[in-house]
Amino acid sequence: MYNLLKGKRGIITGALDENSIAWRVALKAKEEGATFTLTNAPIALRMGKIKQLADECNTIVIPADATLVEDIEKLYQQSMEHLGGKIDFLLHSIGMSPNVRKDRPYNDLNYDWFLKTLDISALSFHKLMQVGEKADALNEKASIVALSYIAAQRTFPDYGDMAQAKAMLESIARSYGYKLGKSKKIRVNTISQSPTPTTAGTGISGFDVFLEYAEKMSPLGNATADDCANYVITLFSDLTEKVTMQNLYHDGGFSAMGISEEIVAQFGK
Amino acid sequence: MYNLLKGKRGIITGALDENSIAWRVALKAKEEGATFTLTNAPIALRMGKIKQLADECNTIVIPADATLVEDIEKLYQQSMEHLGGKIDFLLHSIGMSPNVRKDRPYNDLNYDWFLKTLDISALSFHKLMQVGEKADALNEKASIVALSYIAAQRTFPDYGDMAQAKAMLESIARSYGYKLGKSKKIRVNTISQSPTPTTAGTGISGFDVFLEYAEKMSPLGNATADDCANYVITLFSDLTEKVTMQNLYHDGGFSAMGISEEIVAQFGK
Amino acid sequence: MYNLLKGKRGIITGALDENSIAWRVALKAKEEGATFTLTNAPIALRMGKIKQLADECNTIVIPADATLVEDIEKLYQQSMEHLGGKIDFLLHSIGMSPNVRKDRPYNDLNYDWFLKTLDISALSFHKLMQVGEKADALNEKASIVALSYIAAQRTFPDYGDMAQAKAMLESIARSYGYKLGKSKKIRVNTISQSPTPTTAGTGISGFDVFLEYAEKMSPLGNATADDCANYVITLFSDLTEKVTMQNLYHDGGFSAMGISEEIVAQFGK
Amino acid sequence: MYNLLKGKRGIITGALDENSIAWRVALKAKEEGATFTLTNAPIALRMGKIKQLADECNTIVIPADATLVEDIEKLYQQSMEHLGGKIDFLLHSIGMSPNVRKDRPYNDLNYDWFLKTLDISALSFHKLMQVGEKADALNEKASIVALSYIAAQRTFPDYGDMAQAKAMLESIARSYGYKLGKSKKIRVNTISQSPTPTTAGTGISGFDVFLEYAEKMSPLGNATADDCANYVITLFSDLTEKVTMQNLYHDGGFSAMGISEEIVAQFGK
Repeated sequence: MYNLLKGKRGIITGALDENSIAWRVALKAKEEGATFTLTNAPIALRMGKIKQLADECNTIVIPADATLVEDIEKLYQQSMEHLGGKIDFLLHSIGMSPNVRKDRPYNDLNYDWFLKTLDISALSFHKLMQVGEKADALNEKASIVALSYIAAQRTFPDYGDMAQAKAMLESIARSYGYKLGKSKKIRVNTISQSPTPTTAGTGISGFDVFLEYAEKMSPLGNATADDCANYVITLFSDLTEKVTMQNLYHDGGFSAMGISEEIVAQFGK
Repeated sequence: MYNLLKGKRGIITGALDENSIAWRVALKAKEEGATFTLTNAPIALRMGKIKQLADECNTIVIPADATLVEDIEKLYQQSMEHLGGKIDFLLHSIGMSPNVRKDRPYNDLNYDWFLKTLDISALSFHKLMQVGEKADALNEKASIVALSYIAAQRTFPDYGDMAQAKAMLESIARSYGYKLGKSKKIRVNTISQSPTPTTAGTGISGFDVFLEYAEKMSPLGNATADDCANYVITLFSDLTEKVTMQNLYHDGGFSAMGISEEIVAQFGK
Repeated sequence: MYNLLKGKRGIITGALDENSIAWRVALKAKEEGATFTLTNAPIALRMGKIKQLADECNTIVIPADATLVEDIEKLYQQSMEHLGGKIDFLLHSIGMSPNVRKDRPYNDLNYDWFLKTLDISALSFHKLMQVGEKADALNEKASIVALSYIAAQRTFPDYGDMAQAKAMLESIARSYGYKLGKSKKIRVNTISQSPTPTTAGTGISGFDVFLEYAEKMSPLGNATADDCANYVITLFSDLTEKVTMQNLYHDGGFSAMGISEEIVAQFGK
Repeated sequence: MYNLLKGKRGIITGALDENSIAWRVALKAKEEGATFTLTNAPIALRMGKIKQLADECNTIVIPADATLVEDIEKLYQQSMEHLGGKIDFLLHSIGMSPNVRKDRPYNDLNYDWFLKTLDISALSFHKLMQVGEKADALNEKASIVALSYIAAQRTFPDYGDMAQAKAMLESIARSYGYKLGKSKKIRVNTISQSPTPTTAGTGISGFDVFLEYAEKMSPLGNATADDCANYVITLFSDLTEKVTMQNLYHDGGFSAMGISEEIVAQFGK
């Protein structure tokens, strides 16, 4: 549309189906002139329709478990081979909590699963950067973005230990953003996105009520997956080279609201 | 360059000379296909070279004191006439403190001047929106941006009562962002920019030392006026329609730093 | 009760009637062994029953308009005379918005009143410190506290321009806290208190609904005026000598909540 | 001194030697009338002089590895037996990073160690609460405090993966604070303390330079371990019953500073 990513090469993780934010980012990135590879965990590949997306985007899918250093190494190698150069942008869109999936209440967590939540949803972000740096796979001025959620700052009871994973994810952006900023002028940010009715999101109990609540609290309404993809594009573009180590709310204003007139009206009934 | 603002109409306040952030925004906005008017206070017009900028941008300068409702009314009328339609974007880049100018220490402030600081540097932002709304001069989905500084959150001794003005400016973005979001899907944000060697900035005592400190603290170095202009363009574009009521740090990472290795090195000497 | 303020001298502003937070602070401060003077604006004195409080606390009321430097000078002089020494603690509990009182919508504010809101509710805090410092009326290690509200960070539509006043109030605490910290080891903080059914609070439209909403959102329920008084005492005591330039939420957890199960339940109906 | 904790029973973790914050908290808690047990990891017990502290405080030491649920169960059982009732306050002062200890740079972390850092320094906080809740060992209105550091919000290069551990620790306070607030009116907070020359702290490389930097940045200077102990006492007392889910900076003002005149002076040389 604008050629904002012309000539840029990237890796997009986490696309599962058309509802995925990562899916929408891939489509927009292609529109904006980028080339990229897609990746997801082997198990997700079986369940999703990511091949279809790869065809639309004229690219390949590289299976990789983002908790495994070896898999990430292969991901970078194959991506660089396929794309013909180092990586200019990277989207981290990976999150899963066994405790949330199995409806464990927050005061009855399984601690092995808690560590798994952290490994999958947060540590994987560090691994993507450390492995990328060691493999010298990241270009100068690359842009790295991970998707987060306001549960990192405020308590949403149904979000469980994913709150800690997101807090940690955002913290990794600050810590690693310093390193990569100094060494290669690379920027690292997280986007704190509205609740989004992705296949993952809708799995959380009470999601519908919450979605409506957020919609009524946010003056612009919830940001959709497509809105988010647009925003990600600006962060991958050359126009945001000095934005780094930030958590950027992309939520129609939700994060800055105390209460809205619509909530008062509904509540006052 | 990308046609990000093609067909959009705007008003840009605060351009004084080539060092002004507003000046750089104007040049970029033109490049991106926008049309706009320029405005500044009558006194600033005499001192600056804004006519030169207007010529480069093929537009007009509308003198307006941003503390005066009548002046702002005229600004909108003449802008709409000149541009042939309502406003899609607005840059607030206005700030002045008599107390800082006259080097009044923070514990010996003149209170009439303090109110003046607030009126010029913060209340003017509210006035631009209230008058614009009353005159029905703002388009659906317009984007409004004001320039702020991290002194709103943390203390920089030489910044004086401008710290309060910036805190208030950011607060106005949140309050008015709610109103305009609900009524017209307009978004309102502030950018918290690196210290920038503008003509205004360099007037503050100790500015050089501070600029160097910020440069060494920020992993990407200080964001320049040109960098800021690029970022403003993304916020004026259609790609950020769900970002509102935010204060967005554009500072090479300064705001997320506790200490950098360069500061340690310098400090450890 | 604990003798936490034994031997300390203070000034307490803003007590109107038994519902006032300042009223409860006065009673607790007396219990904890402090002596202090009371003050309020002449007009508030006529409406309130502050004389009754003064009797209970065995002290005097010094009428003072907190926007007037001369009145504040007299306040310090008379306080030091009455108490026999310099001031160890100061409570700022002053706020009023003509725009809110007269139900002006946020997009139809009267700007003279806006400046009045700021002068009364925020600038008065600076004046109390500047005048106190100039009069050398503040003891080493004194503790200064102002009452704030979370509307400084998030939008509550009915709170109007008081949001800006509170943002500015908290900013003043940071700026002046630096000055007084360096010169006299004095600390300056704000408490961001739950909505409290004081005579002032209940004047805001929709207050009842909002109070109930906050009650259901906060895991500990809303903090009462008495709770707040207890918290203020800890900040006036010697046990918090290194806490400064902070905005401290005292709200039963409200500020850290995204949504509560009670809100979901009510909302899901 | 004030009898602020008269009749209260607690558990204090993490005391190693007289430099430990936990050690100072224990001494103050005793002064204020509390009874409590002490605990630390078996290995720390061998290295430290905690027995000496136990003697001074007339209490026992219960060895417990805070990553092990069974150990924590025993800790609560034996504590309740020794103290004759349920727990009113709990101090979490536990942190260790193998990566930091072995000087692994942030872009060459060992991921098994990273998970260990999280398990020891953050997950242990959750375990202390979950086990305590399941054992019904926590009294109504109990107060739970964990010690944190501003590296949770801002990057300090030498702090390594402990930044993530502290971000997670603070997040756990918010999530579990909600649960315990609703069920038992228990409050959960973290204190973000100045860098403190404890035996643990001084192990971090470049600590001395950083300590001096923080001292010069903070208007009140760094908060000491004794200052921190005083502050903890206020949070354990009945005067702060409505403060919960907060991260409370106790740092002489450091967190609210952008730059200080002393830093400018040193830097400008």
